[in-house]
Amino acid sequence: MRQLYHLPISPASRKVRLVLAEKNVDFELIEERDWERRDAFLGLNPAGEVPVFVDEDGEIICGSNAICDYLEETRPDCLALLPATPTDRAEVRRLIDWFDRKFAAEVSDGLIFEKVARRFLSAADGGGAPEMGVVRAALHNLRYHLDYISYLMEERRWLAGDELTLADLTAAAHLSCLDYIGDVPWSQYPLAKDWYVRIKSRPGFRPVLADHVPGMPPPKLYANLDF
Amino acid sequence: MRQLYHLPISPASRKVRLVLAEKNVDFELIEERDWERRDAFLGLNPAGEVPVFVDEDGEIICGSNAICDYLEETRPDCLALLPATPTDRAEVRRLIDWFDRKFAAEVSDGLIFEKVARRFLSAADGGGAPEMGVVRAALHNLRYHLDYISYLMEERRWLAGDELTLADLTAAAHLSCLDYIGDVPWSQYPLAKDWYVRIKSRPGFRPVLADHVPGMPPPKLYANLDF
Repeated sequence: MRQLYHLPISPASRKVRLVLAEKNVDFELIEERDWERRDAFLGLNPAGEVPVFVDEDGEIICGSNAICDYLEETRPDCLALLPATPTDRAEVRRLIDWFDRKFAAEVSDGLIFEKVARRFLSAADGGGAPEMGVVRAALHNLRYHLDYISYLMEERRWLAGDELTLADLTAAAHLSCLDYIGDVPWSQYPLAKDWYVRIKSRPGFRPVLADHVPGMPPPKLYANLDF
Repeated sequence: MRQLYHLPISPASRKVRLVLAEKNVDFELIEERDWERRDAFLGLNPAGEVPVFVDEDGEIICGSNAICDYLEETRPDCLALLPATPTDRAEVRRLIDWFDRKFAAEVSDGLIFEKVARRFLSAADGGGAPEMGVVRAALHNLRYHLDYISYLMEERRWLAGDELTLADLTAAAHLSCLDYIGDVPWSQYPLAKDWYVRIKSRPGFRPVLADHVPGMPPPKLYANLDF
């Protein structure tokens, strides 16, 4: 059975789960608290980070970029998540980079570290109460990114064009983590919300919406398609 | 004429320059101080960051990942920088991610910000003297990554296997920036140094070694192949 080592509130892990679902891949989900630096896990991925995918032949693929490209290349009969031309693919990759690097640095890394990771870490590793200055700055930056999604949605059906791509799943993976924390002011961004309603309605999103972090229940509307 | 908007001490820009050279692409190099947020540049890349590549048909490709994949896909007659099988490509992408994300976060982002960017920024934007605590932590982390390169070199000719790939050019782009600042203790890591000598000897490296940042000359051995 294929396996995915993941964490529930990790955008990179969620992105891979969404891609695996779109590619109709059955897999076992294994929660890996990667900050514990378990030896057996470091044997799988020397970077010591989720996600790690183990294919049915035992092939180990580390990191969301490597896993998503690997699935795209090895499952050609499934829904394509990258477009046909190099130029269109470059637009998808620009947006993947936007969310995995820019959005992560300006919004999601900070919010997830302050509001989630600090609950699980020892005091020596940075555990404790969130730094509200970081949280406020990230929430401020989030609005700029919701504006950008809204701007794209004025002309496009999905983030990179007419079709659903890896760019949408990347952005949705980040935003669904923030949604779990209850931090996305969707009602003020109707175009972005409409995009998120559509992606949240896909069957592959259901397991992600069923996640529950112990001691940290999601807000009421988190799993609701009519939010 | 194709154009590349870049900065000299930017690993992402250097990576693209190295790839363009390996792919035999002629291009004009345009220095873009992206922190000045020039309107015309934001028109090319709404993320406001180098590198941006403008192809001869006017196609605009933003970000090192998008540009490198675009060049790989559109120049099939040149030296391939990604291997033939999905599994081997996944290993290359794991290592690209290692350097562009892990090495960047633990080493190069901090060193370049503290020792280079702070010279050019206004005091309000963080200009001024480097924070030595950040510099020390980054230099400490660098040793762990040089160990990892050495470990890979015990079994492999290049980082991802027997052939030069995008993983080598990614790692070399980061390390050459640190080398410009004079921060790499090569002599203590002979296997890593041997790898870097080989990649530094490639013709595509020459223009990178000719870079001079005003007011910040590189150390004597920076451009020397016998360092």
